[in-house]
Amino acid sequence: SRHRIAVIPGDGIGREVVPAGLEALHATASRFGISLELDEFGFASAEYWQRHGTMMPADWEETLRGYDAIYFGAVGWPEIVPDHVSLWGSLLQIRRTFDQYVNLRPCRLMPGVRSPLAGREPGDIDFVVVRENTEGEYSSVGGRVFEGTERETVLQETVMTRIGVDRVLRFAYEQAARRPARHITSATKSNGISISMPFWDERVADMAGRFPDVRVDKLHIDALAAQFVLHPERFDVVVASNLFGDILSDLGPACAGTLGIAPSANINPERDHPSLFEPVHGSAPDIAGQGIANPVGQIWCASMMLEHLGHPEAAAHLLGAIEDVLALGPAEAPLTPDLHGKGTTVELARAIADRVRER
Amino acid sequence: SRHRIAVIPGDGIGREVVPAGLEALHATASRFGISLELDEFGFASAEYWQRHGTMMPADWEETLRGYDAIYFGAVGWPEIVPDHVSLWGSLLQIRRTFDQYVNLRPCRLMPGVRSPLAGREPGDIDFVVVRENTEGEYSSVGGRVFEGTERETVLQETVMTRIGVDRVLRFAYEQAARRPARHITSATKSNGISISMPFWDERVADMAGRFPDVRVDKLHIDALAAQFVLHPERFDVVVASNLFGDILSDLGPACAGTLGIAPSANINPERDHPSLFEPVHGSAPDIAGQGIANPVGQIWCASMMLEHLGHPEAAAHLLGAIEDVLALGPAEAPLTPDLHGKGTTVELARAIADRVRER
Ligand SMILES: CC(C)[C@H](C(=O)O)[C@@H](O)C(=O)O
Ligand SMILES: CC(C)[C@H](C(=O)O)[C@@H](O)C(=O)O
Repeated sequence: SRHRIAVIPGDGIGREVVPAGLEALHATASRFGISLELDEFGFASAEYWQRHGTMMPADWEETLRGYDAIYFGAVGWPEIVPDHVSLWGSLLQIRRTFDQYVNLRPCRLMPGVRSPLAGREPGDIDFVVVRENTEGEYSSVGGRVFEGTERETVLQETVMTRIGVDRVLRFAYEQAARRPARHITSATKSNGISISMPFWDERVADMAGRFPDVRVDKLHIDALAAQFVLHPERFDVVVASNLFGDILSDLGPACAGTLGIAPSANINPERDHPSLFEPVHGSAPDIAGQGIANPVGQIWCASMMLEHLGHPEAAAHLLGAIEDVLALGPAEAPLTPDLHGKGTTVELARAIADRVRER
Repeated sequence: SRHRIAVIPGDGIGREVVPAGLEALHATASRFGISLELDEFGFASAEYWQRHGTMMPADWEETLRGYDAIYFGAVGWPEIVPDHVSLWGSLLQIRRTFDQYVNLRPCRLMPGVRSPLAGREPGDIDFVVVRENTEGEYSSVGGRVFEGTERETVLQETVMTRIGVDRVLRFAYEQAARRPARHITSATKSNGISISMPFWDERVADMAGRFPDVRVDKLHIDALAAQFVLHPERFDVVVASNLFGDILSDLGPACAGTLGIAPSANINPERDHPSLFEPVHGSAPDIAGQGIANPVGQIWCASMMLEHLGHPEAAAHLLGAIEDVLALGPAEAPLTPDLHGKGTTVELARAIADRVRER
């Protein structure tokens, strides 16, 4: 069976790491006899915006609907289009329209990667953030009154629904039930945010009843962020609202050395719509065009995508190749500058693709 | 002139660190001939709640209004009263009613304190978080509909006003203008939170025009949290909304070794109302009653309070005493367990008070 993949490089380093990711994907697919059909799209980019005045074509939904997965780079180029316009006009809209309500973000300290945390070794940091991905603080509901006057007031609604919260919690509990530690940490802020967050806590407690084997803790987001730095070894599955999950899934990878290797899967678990795979990092205008962006996050996304498409062995093989190359360290492997190496995007991707073939 | 101080120990370790803080405060006051009149109050505690069914007496505002400052411990005891009830019924209400719209939270890696970040030395981490303290994400506006049904939906409003944002930004820019680095980082999330955060960015840009000498950066909160871990040396003044400031002012102190030493000043800059001084840490039910809570955050608060009351020399002297004792390290000084020592709250406070007298 052939898988149809939509490829969207987007902006900035997205255009550099996506080809790198595809090289590793192709190497893995041919090794495992997986047949892929790839179509590349130029929308969801500032270039497209400049030409069309929108981020995506009007029929983007029909266009993407038929694919088994979307392999996405990064979007955002604030010099040309304000971030909230580019993101709400592309990535955030795709997540919502395709009901990709789980954003799964593994965070692992890899062999060969230096953590900024003193004395941390691979094994000390190995958790997964399950982020709600369609509602909550990212609502687009609200507005301004008395614009331009001293009375100017801005309202932005956080919207949480029982359906929306329960389904992501269920996914998180199921993940935890399958992992050896069987432990969930729920990110809250119910002491300060007095309506939505107590509701979140209630749903967490309710879901706990259905998973008696899973141990559950709740921590306020401020304390939780502090604990990531002080005790990252305490975390297994972390479940969080859209905003809190966003913050924790950048902070976690930073603690594990670099954002450059962190992948994410925007999943519609029911498979009514395609899921989307993109690295956690953004388009990084500051280093775009230099050929030094770390391709590992994008390559790890290819592994998550293979897993989602029903090829767990191929996924594990590719992840193993990533680990093998990283483990060589910056002296032996062409690691990128964020990994304290002197390698380029292309060199590091090639080394991983080679390793896929050799292993 | 005599200063009238309201003392509110609150809950948990608040009751342990407040007496410790007062010992250091008294030592400093008598050394500098500062006359203090202290009144202690038992409200803003779970004990008060159990007796009265409210967190504070109806006339709390009149009661506290006449004081020059409030010296506060910590509030919250979720076994007895839900956190959002205890906090909105006390601390958060005081911050708002007394228009303490600046929450000033210095974050510094002190000599003798071990950072969890590899290779970081005192001097590498030294910034101040200026947190908006009355509006934003902590709004208490919103509600639930269709409660208990599948349609259950919760709305929570973020409210930002031009007056509210501008005044805290002005304070932050003024702070930055006075510091050698003259650098502000604004915490935003305008790519994802599409109404309130673009407004925040606009006000930051507008205020920048009035402070041409101050360099200003903006960073999305996810990237900013990551940068605290990867490059804490890049920060000088960080200005943030209520929620973002809350998160960053826990994460920053964690990077600087422990939350136990971090102070905060809830300031009404116009001095129309008393300001409130409280450590960043909470009531810590897990270690309460053991006598091992770190009193340094509470003592540093006494220094900030003395500064606010017009005694910069006394404030600096007390902060110097804290530094001297911490610099001895856990082998020479009775540092508490969070500082890798074996000292108790009482012993560490005594050592600092002694040092105040000796210096
Ligand atoms: C207790 C809680 C409501 C409070 C806050 O979030 O403001 C605390 O975390 C703080 O930072 O002072
Ligand atoms: C670009 C931005 C809107 C996005 C988000 O906050 O969701 C990104 O930070 C992410 O984490 O995928």
